[in-house]
Amino acid sequence: MSRNWLERPIEGVLLDITGVLYESGTGNGTAIPGSVEAFKRLKASGIPVRLVTNETCATRSAIVNKLRSHGFELVDSDICNPAPVVVSILKERGLRPHLLVSPEIECEFVELEKDNPTCVVLGDADEEFSFQNMNLVLRTLLAMKEPLLFSLGKGRYYKHKGQIQLDVGAYAAALEFACGINAEVVGKPSPHYFGAVLQALGVTASEAVMVGDDIVSDVGGAQACGIRGVLVRTGKYTPNDENHPTVKPDFIADTLEEVVNLILKTRK
Amino acid sequence: MSRNWLERPIEGVLLDITGVLYESGTGNGTAIPGSVEAFKRLKASGIPVRLVTNETCATRSAIVNKLRSHGFELVDSDICNPAPVVVSILKERGLRPHLLVSPEIECEFVELEKDNPTCVVLGDADEEFSFQNMNLVLRTLLAMKEPLLFSLGKGRYYKHKGQIQLDVGAYAAALEFACGINAEVVGKPSPHYFGAVLQALGVTASEAVMVGDDIVSDVGGAQACGIRGVLVRTGKYTPNDENHPTVKPDFIADTLEEVVNLILKTRK
Repeated sequence: MSRNWLERPIEGVLLDITGVLYESGTGNGTAIPGSVEAFKRLKASGIPVRLVTNETCATRSAIVNKLRSHGFELVDSDICNPAPVVVSILKERGLRPHLLVSPEIECEFVELEKDNPTCVVLGDADEEFSFQNMNLVLRTLLAMKEPLLFSLGKGRYYKHKGQIQLDVGAYAAALEFACGINAEVVGKPSPHYFGAVLQALGVTASEAVMVGDDIVSDVGGAQACGIRGVLVRTGKYTPNDENHPTVKPDFIADTLEEVVNLILKTRK
Repeated sequence: MSRNWLERPIEGVLLDITGVLYESGTGNGTAIPGSVEAFKRLKASGIPVRLVTNETCATRSAIVNKLRSHGFELVDSDICNPAPVVVSILKERGLRPHLLVSPEIECEFVELEKDNPTCVVLGDADEEFSFQNMNLVLRTLLAMKEPLLFSLGKGRYYKHKGQIQLDVGAYAAALEFACGINAEVVGKPSPHYFGAVLQALGVTASEAVMVGDDIVSDVGGAQACGIRGVLVRTGKYTPNDENHPTVKPDFIADTLEEVVNLILKTRK
């Protein structure tokens, strides 16, 4: 771990949401102590901030409403999530998607033509990851001249209502194996995705820092792009993360509050 | 393709079942023309023969009964299938399995202790590959100190009742990705598995030939063990297989009948 992560000024901040701002759990979860206030002070400081999530079970507005219910003050444009990004990619490339995503976000794809699909978009579909739906996706891919699969994030598993369950990355891996292809990942840790967020922030990689609870997707993903990666000891963090074989965070903090305090201290 | 595949004498024959002896389809499928007679003449010649299948939806007896209904003359011991092999591995290593297999073959595991599982056995579970069952397998694996997954074969997909569906290999890939592990494959194309069949046949790899319709699992798997690999133009064969980027069959025949005719000619 570098002791000098604050030597270079920080001109932009990327924050993961779940496990950094609030802990998931039953219902809407609970805000992590100090995080509401810390987020407010960070935004008030004038440093550009984006909430960078792989959440694909809710629209941006639904995420905003959830965070507001915890006391966070924010607007839709504070959030970067994969669905709007993949929609703009599909539009640009003239692609027609077959969707296996959460019913909650299907509305985001409403403008796109879907007959005779030329690609598959896989999100965290939760219970929709049935044997039947996965076979339909497989047949759709195999019917394409060149099977094209977009995966909204590449998560391995996560906790939902207290129970661990497979995330979209595992189902993408099943289809990659079956079709002999590699999915295009839209979301962390894709370098393209981090690049789009930096552009939105108006900063370069070396000016930015990413704060997250996922050692691989948040910290490792950011560092692979030249962004400083800070791990917090909340959310899915486990002490094992501090001995990760390949990813060494630039800094490890107990909470977001500690990170924000350190960043703001450099601005005075 | 080598023209000399028959230069070395053939002392043992491994045959895939589905797509070589019979075509699957509605109901029990149909015998491939000439295969009943060819199989009979091959066995009568005195060359040791084993039917080597990754079939994990039926017990050995059920497979024999199905083949008999098509007119094939055979006994249980003519068949090598993964379930009995994995059972003997689990016994040897004192492992307690959590099963996600077809209900049809659960009986094969009846003698094994299953409380506090120390490994997971994944077969072609068909509709049992539900979101719920996959999550249960994931949680079982993550609860182990060292997650241990056995995959009965590593198929990508297959046709069932005229529809393509994901095979066990895809679901194993999902779990491998989620847990960061590699499954132990019991079945084709595992070299251990081919080795066990050679031992049962009492021949060395260089004395044997494998006949199959799967360019990767049958032909490639056998060749990787030093067994000659013959592809037949029946079953899941497609013309693309003849231009496979890495696997070059030792011979390509229209049917099993043609292969048997050529083998028996060398014995006269």
